[in-house]
Order: sequence, then C-alpha cells, then structure tokens
Amino acid sequence: MPPSTDPVFGEPGRLTVEELQLATRNHGLPLEALRYPLTPAGLHYLLIHYDVPAVDAETWSLEVDGAVALPRRLTLEQLRARPRTTLAVTMECAGNGRALMDPRPLSQPWLHEAVGTAEWSGTPLGALLDEAGLDPKAREIVFTGLDRGVEGGIEQSYARALSLDDARRPEVLLAYEMNGQPLLPQHGAPVRLVVPGWYGMASVKWLSGLSVVREPFRGYQQERSYRFRLDPDEPGVAMQRIRPRALMIPPGIPDFFTRRRVLPMGPCRIAGRAWSGTSPIAAVEVSDDDGATWREATLEPAELGPWAWRSWSYDWQPRAAGEHVLCCRARDTGGSAQTDAPGWNVGGYANPAAQRVSVTVEG
Amino acid sequence: MPPSTDPVFGEPGRLTVEELQLATRNHGLPLEALRYPLTPAGLHYLLIHYDVPAVDAETWSLEVDGAVALPRRLTLEQLRARPRTTLAVTMECAGNGRALMDPRPLSQPWLHEAVGTAEWSGTPLGALLDEAGLDPKAREIVFTGLDRGVEGGIEQSYARALSLDDARRPEVLLAYEMNGQPLLPQHGAPVRLVVPGWYGMASVKWLSGLSVVREPFRGYQQERSYRFRLDPDEPGVAMQRIRPRALMIPPGIPDFFTRRRVLPMGPCRIAGRAWSGTSPIAAVEVSDDDGATWREATLEPAELGPWAWRSWSYDWQPRAAGEHVLCCRARDTGGSAQTDAPGWNVGGYANPAAQRVSVTVEG
Repeated sequence: MPPSTDPVFGEPGRLTVEELQLATRNHGLPLEALRYPLTPAGLHYLLIHYDVPAVDAETWSLEVDGAVALPRRLTLEQLRARPRTTLAVTMECAGNGRALMDPRPLSQPWLHEAVGTAEWSGTPLGALLDEAGLDPKAREIVFTGLDRGVEGGIEQSYARALSLDDARRPEVLLAYEMNGQPLLPQHGAPVRLVVPGWYGMASVKWLSGLSVVREPFRGYQQERSYRFRLDPDEPGVAMQRIRPRALMIPPGIPDFFTRRRVLPMGPCRIAGRAWSGTSPIAAVEVSDDDGATWREATLEPAELGPWAWRSWSYDWQPRAAGEHVLCCRARDTGGSAQTDAPGWNVGGYANPAAQRVSVTVEG
Repeated sequence: MPPSTDPVFGEPGRLTVEELQLATRNHGLPLEALRYPLTPAGLHYLLIHYDVPAVDAETWSLEVDGAVALPRRLTLEQLRARPRTTLAVTMECAGNGRALMDPRPLSQPWLHEAVGTAEWSGTPLGALLDEAGLDPKAREIVFTGLDRGVEGGIEQSYARALSLDDARRPEVLLAYEMNGQPLLPQHGAPVRLVVPGWYGMASVKWLSGLSVVREPFRGYQQERSYRFRLDPDEPGVAMQRIRPRALMIPPGIPDFFTRRRVLPMGPCRIAGRAWSGTSPIAAVEVSDDDGATWREATLEPAELGPWAWRSWSYDWQPRAAGEHVLCCRARDTGGSAQTDAPGWNVGGYANPAAQRVSVTVEG
C-alpha cells in the first residue's frame, strides 16, 4: 500500500490560484441547463486531469491484451462494425460539492454543477472481452487513456480498473458517439469507456488499451485518488456508484456577480432533475426555509431509462416577499439519501449536502 | 452620466466564492486546444452574464424597429433565406487576463484562456439596415438579447449599441450557425450578432431585437460596464477592438493541480496562435527566461482570413535542465503590442501582459 496523498486544504471562501486554474479549464453544467433532458454539446460537465490529448481517429486503435487467449488491436471502424447500443447516462464527477466542504480539499473546486446527461452510443464491452478469451485467473480489466501528466508526484497515463463482473455488465460501453455525434475531443475522442451509474472517473476517456490482469490494479487513480477517507492515513473505500442527488433550475433571474436570484411574488413552479447510480430515485423534497421544513416534489417517470436523471417539479407559493433559501434533496429506493449539512472526507468526494439557492421575492 | 460602479477588488491569490461561481459556469479554452484552427464545440470560451435563456427557434423572431421607415419582424427562416456569409472569427472576452491584475477586479476571473475561433455563418447586417430605411438622424443601433438579470443594482436585458458606421461594416453578421451547425444554446441560439475584431461583449447573443436610435445609447453594458478606466470616477473609454495577444500551447505534460509543465531535455517546438482586432499581427516573440530576452517566432500566413488568429511556432532548445519560464507576446502592424508586466484598470479589461508558462526540463 503506497502512502496516501498528503491532504492540503484551503481557507474558507478563499480559493487558490491553482483551484482557479482548474476551474477556468474544467467546467460544470450551468444549472439552468438542467432544463434540457439531454445536455447540449459544451454544457456537460468536464473534468480533465491532464491535457486533452491530440488523437488521430484514422490511425487510432485499441489494444486488448494481458491475460487473454487472443490479444488484438481494434480500429475505430472495427468497433463501429460491432453491435451498437445507445444509452442515456447521467454522469457526475466524484468531486461534486467539494468546494462546499470545510475544510475544503484542494482540487477541482466544484460547487453543485459537475453533472450532465448524454446519449452515448458504442459497443458493449462484455462480448469483446468474451471473444478475447479471458484467462481463468483474470481478475480485473485495466483501462488506460492517452492523457498523460503528473499527479501526486507520479508521472502517469490516466488509468482505472473494473472487476470482471463490473466490466461485463451489459450497460458498460466502449462509446464512440455522444448525442448522435462522434465524440468531441474533450469527451474522449475517438473512443472512451462509459460505465453507467458510476462516478465519472470510471469512464476512462481517450482509451488506448485495455489489459486483463490477474492481480488487483494498484495505479494512482485507483489506490490513492478517488477513495473515501475520513483520515488521510486510512486506505479508504473506492468511490464507485453515484449517490442520490437532486438539483433545481434556479428560479427567477440572477444577479451577475452574486448569482442571487430575483423573482416576482406569486406562484412559482420549481423544476429540476434527480438521479442515483445505486437504486431508482424514491423521492425528491423541497424546502423554502433553508431546510427547516420539507415537502415532497412531484417525480416524473424515468423517461430516459434507468441510467439517467428524472424530472421533478414543485409548485411553490412564496408565503411572503423577501429573502428565502430554497433547497432540494433526493433519496433512492436503496436507502441512500442526501443530508442537510455538508458531508466531509479527505478527498472531497460525493458531498451529500442539499442544494441551496438564495432568492429574493419582490413584493 | 450615471455614477460608475463601485470598484471591489480581491486579495491576491484568494479568489472569492462569487468568482468561483462564475468560473464554474463560464469557461475558457483549455490552452492545448489552441492546436485546433477552429475551436471544437464546447471548447470556445463562454461568458454569460445572466442565464442561458430558453428560446424556441420555431416561434422566435427578430424585431427591427426604432428610427426606420419600415419596421418589421424577421423569422429565422426569413433570415436564413437572405444572402449568407461565412467568416472565421477569433472572439475574446474583454476581461481576459483580469485575474492576473493586482489588485484584482472582482468579476469573471479569467487568466489567459477567454478566447476561441469559430466559423460563423449568417447574413450581413448592413443590407438589412438599408432595407429598413434609416432615418437621416439615426445614430446608433441598439441590440437587445433575451438574457435578463440584475447587474450594478439594475434589472436589465443584456443590450449593447454600435454606431451606424460600425454596424454597416460588411463583416458584421446576424449569425445562425457556428462551425456549420445551428448555434448551441450557450452561444446565442437561434441568432446572435457577430462583430469581428471586437471583444465579445459587442456580439450580443440570443438577439430579440435591434432598434435604431437617434441618441447615444446609455445602457449599463455601454456606459457603466466595458469601459477602460484608471479611476472609478472617470467616464472612461469604451472597450471596442481586440488588442494583440499571443498564446502558446503549453509544451510537455502538466501536473494535475499546479498545471506546471514537465518536458524532456532536447529540442522542443513551441506553437501557438496570435491575433489582433485592430491591425494584422506583425510579430510574435518568445522568451525562455521569464521575459529577460526575446526571440522572434515564425509567423504562418493568415490562413483563416483577416478576422481570425494566425499560427506561430518557435524551435526552442533548452540551454539546461531545470526550471524555465516561457513567455510569448505579440504586436500588430498598427503599433499595438503586449507588455511584459500586467496592465491594470478598474474593470480588469484587456490585460496586455505576456503569457507565462512555468516548465521543468528533465535532464
């Protein structure tokens, strides 16, 4: 077990230049874009550890090797000729909500917006693994990207592993299209992994190869990063499936700088989306008094299928003009639920805190 | 003259939560994406004052009114049936470089990356104005967007004006396509103004109307915001044309958090883009010693036409392993040039400072 990364925390309300450098490169979903069932190109959240690599789709190929009977290389054309599946998938960064934690772990400083939903098209991974002839002692599949950089003092290509069982689930895709278009460079062109229901770190972009291994993968992104730890010295638990979350489209109009919302007195339909990677969403609740009391929202059917967010709405009647703090929270049928207060962990992952939106109702 | 906005500044290296809220919504060009002559969807910089508005292209229309003989409304179909022009245009936010100023004006905290280049297709504005029959006393055209919010304490729809001469220049377009596709919601769908050579604030998105006026427009975005002031109480000078700038693709590979670059000892071709909205680029220079000495880069022809960036390159031979600070700067044929030190002004506009990239050459 290598030592865990030394934790470094920021002062409350004082972002560092390093966090700003990440925030100007990566970006979240502007929350009003929750209105689109499928997130338009350029509005889906993006978290890129290193640089977007320069990849030529014409000469690109995917290497399949390791503990297999038939190692091979597949071109994009060969992958596209295989059976095709299209799935709507809500993807969320494991670090969503990190910047709301106190103390704030220093990394990409997400507030609430590290999410997006797209229709991914590609070929199921399972059949390809079966054709390769897995060694009986095979244990995991290691997926390696073409993006290269330094992290925790280690030069590396971004790489993550899945267990055989996880990798062979029917929804796991080698994806080459997003919303009906070839992948954009920043989303992993020409081919990426898509692991529905899991936080985004599992869906390795710019795939160069997948390797079947007989021992657990000990790479940086598996064993040091993306682990839930309450103490920096514990091994922690690997981040995997997305916990439940609801987000609302902030009602009214914003102030440019503070993003505080202004709306007229009168009935206001609050709408949003909710998702969980573990179990179906069971309920969404809304509060208009900063979480003191909650009422149930109306949940729409899962129109985009089991891997994508669902719509919800709540007809709010402000009791008075003035200041209100609107909140929403979700729980799923498996018993996972958001909390009222921010959670905390060393890496700043999966903050379960309910979204809070400050609004001024004009009388 | 209304009072200017009270200036508010941030502490060096300590970004506020309000700045973070803007940085997670808006986003810049990841600098490695300077490699693409035309910026792919989703990588072009975005600065949205309020929210992306919900607009139905089917029912949308553009109102042309004010001091004209023939007021009218045009549908998207009618605009698309008019003469079509396609231009490659480099667009840059007037606030690019703001976060490098000291003291730092509090607004969208751009470092270097608020830029992008796209091919915009649309119909020239000038002919449409001529057909409307301008009143002899007409002075400016006011362009109003569907995006609404509060700024400087004033509720407003985003609006900007151009003089008749500026509005009738042949390169000014009512644009409905970006890189051959209908505008994305965040870039002003269905129709926006594109004013080549000007900072992005002039290219009003989500156009709802244009109105011909006989008096100078005194709206917030014209008279209070987007003005170059050294003192908050002076009226200042309106920001208009883009000043020269060069940016390099950071060489080597990045450290995830610090974004510091690592590269092997040996020859290194440094490449980038340079642009100016005033005059053609005359030269790009590169320094490998934090600006102490400069050498001229090789400038490529203006392959994308007069309104877009040009490629440049420089073959760098590091003199020694270790730490280096690479810089680049541009000047144009009109005598405008970048400076070595950050400029400063109340609104944080058009920082002329040369880009600096810290690299470690491994021996």
